Amino acid sequence: MDIATLREQHSDHWMRAAALRMLAMDAVAAANSGHTGMPMGMADVATVLYAKHLKFDASAPDWADRDRFILSAGHGSMLLYGLLHLTGYEDMTLEQIKNFRQWGAKTAGHPEYGHAKGIETTTGPLGQGIATSVGFAIAEEALRARFGKKIVDHKTYVIAGDGCLMEGVSQEAIALAGHLKLGNLIVFWDNNGITIDGKVGLSDSTDQVKRFDAANWHTQEIDGHDPDAIDAAIEAAKKAGKPSMIACKTNIALGSSAQDTSKGHGALTDPQLISDTREVYGWNHAPFDIPADIKSWWEKVGSRGAEAREAWNDRVEELSANKRALFDRMQSGEAPKKLSGTIRALKKQISESGPKVATRKSSEMVLEVVNPVMPETIGGSADLTGSNNTLTADLGTFTAEDRKGRYVYYGIREHGMAACLNGLALHGGIRPYGGTFFVFTDYARPAMRLSALMGIPVVYVMTHDSIGLGEDGPTHQPVEHLAMCRATPNTLVFRPADTVETAEAWEIALSVKDSPSVLALTRQGLPTVRREHKTRNLTAQGAYVLADADGKRQAVLLATGSEVSIAMEAREKLQAEGIGTRVVSMPCWELFEQQDESYRRRVLPASAVRVGIEAGVRQGWDRWLLGERGREAKAGFVGMSSFGASAPAEELFEKFGITADAVVEKVKSLL
Amino acid sequence: MDIATLREQHSDHWMRAAALRMLAMDAVAAANSGHTGMPMGMADVATVLYAKHLKFDASAPDWADRDRFILSAGHGSMLLYGLLHLTGYEDMTLEQIKNFRQWGAKTAGHPEYGHAKGIETTTGPLGQGIATSVGFAIAEEALRARFGKKIVDHKTYVIAGDGCLMEGVSQEAIALAGHLKLGNLIVFWDNNGITIDGKVGLSDSTDQVKRFDAANWHTQEIDGHDPDAIDAAIEAAKKAGKPSMIACKTNIALGSSAQDTSKGHGALTDPQLISDTREVYGWNHAPFDIPADIKSWWEKVGSRGAEAREAWNDRVEELSANKRALFDRMQSGEAPKKLSGTIRALKKQISESGPKVATRKSSEMVLEVVNPVMPETIGGSADLTGSNNTLTADLGTFTAEDRKGRYVYYGIREHGMAACLNGLALHGGIRPYGGTFFVFTDYARPAMRLSALMGIPVVYVMTHDSIGLGEDGPTHQPVEHLAMCRATPNTLVFRPADTVETAEAWEIALSVKDSPSVLALTRQGLPTVRREHKTRNLTAQGAYVLADADGKRQAVLLATGSEVSIAMEAREKLQAEGIGTRVVSMPCWELFEQQDESYRRRVLPASAVRVGIEAGVRQGWDRWLLGERGREAKAGFVGMSSFGASAPAEELFEKFGITADAVVEKVKSLL
Repeated sequence: MDIATLREQHSDHWMRAAALRMLAMDAVAAANSGHTGMPMGMADVATVLYAKHLKFDASAPDWADRDRFILSAGHGSMLLYGLLHLTGYEDMTLEQIKNFRQWGAKTAGHPEYGHAKGIETTTGPLGQGIATSVGFAIAEEALRARFGKKIVDHKTYVIAGDGCLMEGVSQEAIALAGHLKLGNLIVFWDNNGITIDGKVGLSDSTDQVKRFDAANWHTQEIDGHDPDAIDAAIEAAKKAGKPSMIACKTNIALGSSAQDTSKGHGALTDPQLISDTREVYGWNHAPFDIPADIKSWWEKVGSRGAEAREAWNDRVEELSANKRALFDRMQSGEAPKKLSGTIRALKKQISESGPKVATRKSSEMVLEVVNPVMPETIGGSADLTGSNNTLTADLGTFTAEDRKGRYVYYGIREHGMAACLNGLALHGGIRPYGGTFFVFTDYARPAMRLSALMGIPVVYVMTHDSIGLGEDGPTHQPVEHLAMCRATPNTLVFRPADTVETAEAWEIALSVKDSPSVLALTRQGLPTVRREHKTRNLTAQGAYVLADADGKRQAVLLATGSEVSIAMEAREKLQAEGIGTRVVSMPCWELFEQQDESYRRRVLPASAVRVGIEAGVRQGWDRWLLGERGREAKAGFVGMSSFGASAPAEELFEKFGITADAVVEKVKSLL
Repeated sequence: MDIATLREQHSDHWMRAAALRMLAMDAVAAANSGHTGMPMGMADVATVLYAKHLKFDASAPDWADRDRFILSAGHGSMLLYGLLHLTGYEDMTLEQIKNFRQWGAKTAGHPEYGHAKGIETTTGPLGQGIATSVGFAIAEEALRARFGKKIVDHKTYVIAGDGCLMEGVSQEAIALAGHLKLGNLIVFWDNNGITIDGKVGLSDSTDQVKRFDAANWHTQEIDGHDPDAIDAAIEAAKKAGKPSMIACKTNIALGSSAQDTSKGHGALTDPQLISDTREVYGWNHAPFDIPADIKSWWEKVGSRGAEAREAWNDRVEELSANKRALFDRMQSGEAPKKLSGTIRALKKQISESGPKVATRKSSEMVLEVVNPVMPETIGGSADLTGSNNTLTADLGTFTAEDRKGRYVYYGIREHGMAACLNGLALHGGIRPYGGTFFVFTDYARPAMRLSALMGIPVVYVMTHDSIGLGEDGPTHQPVEHLAMCRATPNTLVFRPADTVETAEAWEIALSVKDSPSVLALTRQGLPTVRREHKTRNLTAQGAYVLADADGKRQAVLLATGSEVSIAMEAREKLQAEGIGTRVVSMPCWELFEQQDESYRRRVLPASAVRVGIEAGVRQGWDRWLLGERGREAKAGFVGMSSFGASAPAEELFEKFGITADAVVEKVKSLL
């Protein structure tokens, strides 16, 4: 539908959508940076969606039963900011729009979760939005199954671009969504045929509709500028009973001289182009000036859901006290009071019995007691259930038929799983965890980075955390991955030494609200090193003295995970030679970093020889070995400096020299 | 086709394929580890492929015009090892098979490139094989276009499993291959319906054939045990004129009691199961015992290509001397002699003119002079051509119609691109490079890790390497990525400070043979810091003194990339206050590490205050700031400790405190 027809046949709609287009154009021009073309192309879809379908109340952006809108094509952020501003989200003022992409503004280059209400997830890295939306949709289904349709009944709408669909993670997402028949998920594909490099045809000839069909989606193809067609398509999608993809043929940078070109994808800042476009649009207003009637219409759209929200409030009031309390607690993200007692009981039992188990098994032991007291957990694995030990009794499987199941078989889709976990956590009401091999954080990384950037409490259960996995060889043996996870800001990286530390790590991971956690767990069995029960969560301090020196302290051994028991063994040998040796277990560097300096000094006193032991690369260790400003200690490291190899695990530790004897030797060479 | 029918109607084929199956079963049982079921399921396909179609000569595994066989489902490694052993690859002895998954054996858990001839690429991380194969296919097309069908005319065959097809990277790969109409690429999908967690139906209901159709592939569905059907399907695929996918319905762990179960996916080690299966197979031989007639038949298969290879040798001899020399040089991976002169001339010109340019632009300047003298380069970008500056004049575009083009528009597929680059490099004859934003190494990481693990000279052109990219905000701003790349073994990470260092980095990246290179390049303009021309490649030393202290040396500033000019500015200020300050530019840590200790000491003498400056996280820096054993210097760091933000770049450097003034202050606080 061309502009002339739109202006003639849908004049009201046109001017309302034009408001979105002009805000995008004006903001990008003011910032001299950003993406004008996408908002101009998708304004019609967004206008119809918000005006007629999206269930929301701008005055209550946290309403639990709102529909979610996810702008997967996050570079078109001004479309979202424009919608939030026009519909009256309190914190999305015109001032914010005018400060698009400036320091301190809520209107970052790409939508950043937490910057402003109405931004449901951070997008920009392509494909993340559509993949994350699958988690939103699962969360809605899961909560609806628990609390009923009167309390939970909403949709997740997504706008995805060509880039989102080219990214591999989109395939993982759509395959999973189709398999799970997530009928509450509706994706608009902004089919504008343009990418940064030029026409989509430069690099792609995929029949996207057929591709979605192959993944068991409901599909439609429409003119993405025709308001009636958009409306009808959304109606049909809602009734589809499976996820729905609406291919919207649109013109990027509609109505400008850059229309349908890759130039139109970027920042349109030429004053002549802008004034010409204003003319084409019939928009005779100053930059950022929205006529009162149009603003007022949009504000009515923003309050359209108020009544429904009040009715929903009433229904929530009608819940039984227990159900209500559970709903509220789950929404709040607070762990249940029972959690710490449950963990403590397990710790006590383990300290007393001292089993030798792999920490992946320890993790399962924790989940066995935690899952029953935390109905908000939803677990899963990327096809390594029996290896990650992520499935516990009575969880049930989340399937197209059973929405009460609390375990998701994600398939061989680490990246899609991680994005899904983000969606589950962002939706609210759910504590998600998911497992794969630690080395495959590589596949999941873009989504794991977003967990950290958004500050959401996803738990990554990463087993087979070193050469200790043995025969599968270097492709499956992480050596750089602890360093990588630790290099990422706002990520709690736990590498517990035994079941007790694993329980403590889980307690923290299930209690924090603003950081993801990575649990790096072994394949191989480890002795219990924490044989004396402490009610206090020592892992919460990040590092602590596990065994102090007998006699004069000459050496401090720092270790994590499977190497803590090696450190303990080395300590015995050193003590036998009269070398007083302390062992510090460091299950979580980030938490140790947060302790006050006096505690850190007590654990790592200056002037001793320090040796770090970890079956990974040294990178990052020097901070603890040498002290931040240096000169604290003479230091050595026992670990990996290359990729691993394929052989039985014990042989690998020997061959790569990660043994108690090697530690003893290192200490002596430094003394 | 069931076993009874096979044994009756195809008795010879059956026993030959049974040899593969039994070797897999015996080797896995001996190792008590591995995957038996996949080789048992795909032995028929492999037998027909090797016996009738694959162009190869086991006595000349490096024959440039051989067909490539890629086992994307790498966990089924024993299928490949069995094929190599039976067909007579010299280094794949029976001893190696018996030592499957043991220390030092060529028969690692997953096929490792370089361990044995005939392993064309490392596989195991799922999806990598199929994605890498696209690079092989492009390389073949590109070389055929240059040298003619008489010299280059081969196919790439792939066996991919359900896991490969679930991984998102497979979508990137098949979409690109379909778009480019790579008719020399034939993929067998081992459609056995089983994954580790159970039936594929637990997590997937994709219509894979339709999905490949949607990506413009030729598709067929066959009984993967019927030798005639396999043969006919391969014949048809060869003629398809586009990439071909043959869906092979197979039974995992065929004929064993674990057939068609997830148990059958793993290691079958139960003696009763094994002896029962022997009986079902009609295989009355001891473990690892292959009857002479069967071995001899397989060896004939292995020498089937000898004649063709000799004829090919003759055709190569007939090439003109120039063409022959070029072909040989390109195959050898040696850079042309002209390269260093070309680089030197550019360096001289730049040192003299001293332009202020972004290093991404510097990289383009280098490519502009290098691409004309290195016809073996094939460049590309994941839809950021104009931002990565990867396209130079006269390269031409590699398309379905033009195979002479040397630039690939990879689309928004960083991961698929990286895997493709691996394939291009592994094929031989090509020096591939590809660009994206540095932050999107996250998307490409699994393939980048394989570049490093395999030791192949891929060049990653990673622009927009810090908060210096400005307004796009934290989703696009790498802070942890230098640390991540450096944590990865065998990866050269270059962060050049200006055009001269960029030229030097490119010279190294295009000359090394056994490491990938990552070039981290700025979006923002940088002054030329190397104003005095040196013919020597200083970047090859990894780090060097860019400016020494005037007077007594009190401080050493270490910096990379865009922060080197900040260090130089800080030095001026410090010198003005009488504080003698040395600036060390560190464009490549890994190369610095390789220098002898005396050089390292000369560059970083003990006892001074050292301050590191880099717009990334501190992780890894302490090694240089404190010295490996500590106590060398008091140290400080000016860089990032959080994610970035959305704002103009200059403001971000101010707000995050990465400025000359901050460096001056840090030095003074330490003195």
